[in-house]
Amino acid sequence: MNAEDFARQQREISISEFFEKNRHLLGYDNKVKALLMIVKEGVDNALDATEEARILPDIYIKVKEVGSEKYEIVIKDNGPGIVKKQIPRIFGKLLYGSKFHRLKQNRGQQGIGISAATLYTQLTTGEPLEIVSSTGDGKTQKYRIKINVRKNEPLIIDSGFDEGAEWRGVQLRFLTEGVYREYKQSILEYLKQTAISNPHANIVFDSPSGRLEFRRGVNSLPKEPKEIMPHLHGVELGILTRMLRYTKARTLVSFLTSEFTKVGRKTAKEICAKAEIEGIRKPKGIRDEEVRMLIEVVKGMKLLKPPTDCLSPLGNETVKEGLKKELNPEWVDSVTRPPEVYRGWPFQVEVGLAYGGSIQEPKIMRFANRVPLLYQQGDCAITKASTGVEWRRYGLNGSKGIPEEPLSIFVHLVSVWVPFTSESKEAIASYPVIIKEIKLALQECARKLGLYLSGKRKHEHHKQRIRTFEKYAEETVNALSELTEEERESIKKEFMEFINSHNNKITEEENGGEKEAEISGEERAEPGREEGEHEDRAPRQVTLERLLQREKRPDTDGG
Amino acid sequence: MNAEDFARQQREISISEFFEKNRHLLGYDNKVKALLMIVKEGVDNALDATEEARILPDIYIKVKEVGSEKYEIVIKDNGPGIVKKQIPRIFGKLLYGSKFHRLKQNRGQQGIGISAATLYTQLTTGEPLEIVSSTGDGKTQKYRIKINVRKNEPLIIDSGFDEGAEWRGVQLRFLTEGVYREYKQSILEYLKQTAISNPHANIVFDSPSGRLEFRRGVNSLPKEPKEIMPHLHGVELGILTRMLRYTKARTLVSFLTSEFTKVGRKTAKEICAKAEIEGIRKPKGIRDEEVRMLIEVVKGMKLLKPPTDCLSPLGNETVKEGLKKELNPEWVDSVTRPPEVYRGWPFQVEVGLAYGGSIQEPKIMRFANRVPLLYQQGDCAITKASTGVEWRRYGLNGSKGIPEEPLSIFVHLVSVWVPFTSESKEAIASYPVIIKEIKLALQECARKLGLYLSGKRKHEHHKQRIRTFEKYAEETVNALSELTEEERESIKKEFMEFINSHNNKITEEENGGEKEAEISGEERAEPGREEGEHEDRAPRQVTLERLLQREKRPDTDGG
Repeated sequence: MNAEDFARQQREISISEFFEKNRHLLGYDNKVKALLMIVKEGVDNALDATEEARILPDIYIKVKEVGSEKYEIVIKDNGPGIVKKQIPRIFGKLLYGSKFHRLKQNRGQQGIGISAATLYTQLTTGEPLEIVSSTGDGKTQKYRIKINVRKNEPLIIDSGFDEGAEWRGVQLRFLTEGVYREYKQSILEYLKQTAISNPHANIVFDSPSGRLEFRRGVNSLPKEPKEIMPHLHGVELGILTRMLRYTKARTLVSFLTSEFTKVGRKTAKEICAKAEIEGIRKPKGIRDEEVRMLIEVVKGMKLLKPPTDCLSPLGNETVKEGLKKELNPEWVDSVTRPPEVYRGWPFQVEVGLAYGGSIQEPKIMRFANRVPLLYQQGDCAITKASTGVEWRRYGLNGSKGIPEEPLSIFVHLVSVWVPFTSESKEAIASYPVIIKEIKLALQECARKLGLYLSGKRKHEHHKQRIRTFEKYAEETVNALSELTEEERESIKKEFMEFINSHNNKITEEENGGEKEAEISGEERAEPGREEGEHEDRAPRQVTLERLLQREKRPDTDGG
Repeated sequence: MNAEDFARQQREISISEFFEKNRHLLGYDNKVKALLMIVKEGVDNALDATEEARILPDIYIKVKEVGSEKYEIVIKDNGPGIVKKQIPRIFGKLLYGSKFHRLKQNRGQQGIGISAATLYTQLTTGEPLEIVSSTGDGKTQKYRIKINVRKNEPLIIDSGFDEGAEWRGVQLRFLTEGVYREYKQSILEYLKQTAISNPHANIVFDSPSGRLEFRRGVNSLPKEPKEIMPHLHGVELGILTRMLRYTKARTLVSFLTSEFTKVGRKTAKEICAKAEIEGIRKPKGIRDEEVRMLIEVVKGMKLLKPPTDCLSPLGNETVKEGLKKELNPEWVDSVTRPPEVYRGWPFQVEVGLAYGGSIQEPKIMRFANRVPLLYQQGDCAITKASTGVEWRRYGLNGSKGIPEEPLSIFVHLVSVWVPFTSESKEAIASYPVIIKEIKLALQECARKLGLYLSGKRKHEHHKQRIRTFEKYAEETVNALSELTEEERESIKKEFMEFINSHNNKITEEENGGEKEAEISGEERAEPGREEGEHEDRAPRQVTLERLLQREKRPDTDGG
């Protein structure tokens, strides 16, 4: 081949063609996962839309087998609906959406997910996506859409509308290839975890094995996360150059104050002065060398951190409630860290730990902007941080990684831009500051669990001692009576009073939830005497307290 | 927000914007890796171009520090050059190229790599990419190019040409942010491994620490891999639908025979008959239900496997030569598997094992279409297959994963379409058939290594025994003389002759490279006598052979 031959072969590749051939990059690696991906994209969009429109979400999902490895998937919400003319592009064009260009805590952020579902459906069954939408104007718009893959443009198969709709929202209907399973990384698990991180949502799922309902747990919407401007410390040269070209601001100073977060006039003027550029200059006229200078100046300056009202974590109570409701643990607690920044983007970490009760085995539950992450666990910053905690320090067993205990680890990261490791958004990239924050939160929460466990273990130990004591009460009383030559009945009375008082204490502790962790005080074994020593030579000093003390020795702990 | 508010926010996202924000997906996670990525894209393209033009590649690379964390990178080849009007788009537009739409074994396949380097450069330093190219027509074209990120189109900063060029090829010059390092995953390592998998290339590298040359090892180009048509067993419904719409074929039968590999008229007619579609129908007129029927029919049919002349592995000799040259091992061998098919795409695996010599520790070297893969080792099918081999079975130590031995594992996969796990092309996706092929190849090669090692160990053991024997010769001779009542001198003579003959054998084996592995025959210890038994009661039968045999017992092997 020569240069001319090569030239004839050169062609543009549409993003749809690219992802059709590389569909595993979008999460469509296999038929089981494909069903999950489609449901996930639909539900995530529904939750985003209702939340932004400040509507308590009612979401209906149906997955029904309609042929061999062929499924009908319906996802319906009560959101604001979609304006007619936007429908085709939202569902039939990759890289189109409202979220990529904004810095806002959303579930979606790429403008790929839902169109990728359309792409996979038509690739495997040749069927279009059916969309029904109403914005509450009394009309219901209907579309059937495919994607023109070579052009990455929507292909409208047919469209129409009905009058007299009383409903508002969006309903999607896919006919796709897939396989339905209910094990670990399933639609069921995704919905279960979604219910934990979105207790304000009511979710009904008509699954191939029957109807499931995840009832709304709280009747208020989460705090609305604010959209923010980018932070100067995260902006790269190429992006600053482009922003300067496209800004509507008339001067460099107003550009800096209006297009970046936390830059006041004073700071803006200081930046200009240090970069030796007049603040009244037009942004479009700033030359490349001057942009480089601005970047240099900004790098060296201390600036206010980005605001944190752009973040809406679940909050400790919601985390705890969610874990209690879904897992029924014996103990639960949570920790929320203060917001931090990576690459100029604010993020925040909250964790929860749930122990014992109905929990059988260790498990990590990962969430990003309220969306459960089910795949690529090994690659995820959350896993790396979790396995990096020295759990043994907090009384949890296990050789390495997460402890071999009935422990659920819940980690939620919220950010205006979550750095995923791939387009399929399955794992969070391992920025050191992100790993650090997760670890700190887990350590703090693990300390609380450690206190509870050591209290619980002491309590168990105490109870065990009393039981043993009770068991041998008769004989001990007789022996004491002989040794001390005191009356058997009076010893027995004292003895039983002692046991009863301890039993009462135990019952109290067992009923008093919170109090459990408070069984404290160092109950160390008294050092000294060996098992073999003869106690029977020291009659009078043998008090009940002393006798009990004897039971506490380390070498009798084993029982 | 209501539906109207949402509508106002909807926007198209250009692929350049997408990857600018998600540059970690393209491998630009950090400054060290960024330099490697740019060099890699340039060199891979140069190797592809020279190979397709059947030119022995001479590649020059320069990496020079020109400021704090700022580097000049030059990559120059002697390839066919690029036609003037193609230059801007090849380097200034993502998803543009000659390789995506062909099924051919190439290093590049996405049309993203080199433009991503331009994108990263302008993002970090704001500098354009400088391209100098000549197609051998006496003119040298020059361009300085950036990318219009919002439009994903090239932005020509300036261009021009010189007359009277005697050179042909392409030279690229980047000015980028980065950090130069020479440890594990470095440009140096990439070039070293590239030299192993491309012994027909001559590579000169002017690095920040001096000039390095990787000399051409063979003077012929690798076999040219042929471009092939897709295989019917790999085609999905959506793609078949599109192919039918865009084909130039006039009938369904001619469509099937001309656009797919290994489909003759007879097979094509059989497919049509089974699908109950007339073979003379126009492809454009085939309805959706009929396409589904075609797919069903094809699924159930036995078809010829795709041809294998589309694959060009290195071959056993090249693998061995490469490993010898770069690693100087004590032992080396290689295995090439027959071609196989995944998703309708042919692929082939070849492996090499190099043991001992200058090799210090275990290492996996991964290659795809002659390109070394340096990152994301844990995610790669090659790693999974390698750690899945039971190395201990072949006499290699280690608890799990790859053996703790001085062993280099070389694995090369060639395919018309390598399934990478991400756009940065760092790891191969784990298709079961791919893992299986790699494992089979490694097992076969490991068996050879096992034979060599067991021979070597026997040899070492033998040598050790002779040495021990020699050490105690004097005393043994005396003892034997006393026991047998034969003359000391005659025993000593026989004794020394025996030792010498064994010493000669050892020397012979050590000099005779290949022969080493041939020390065979089961040298098992003679069962029977315990250490404690008294040999001194059986005088005459004590021959030298018997005495040596005695030394071979398992319980004396430890020495």
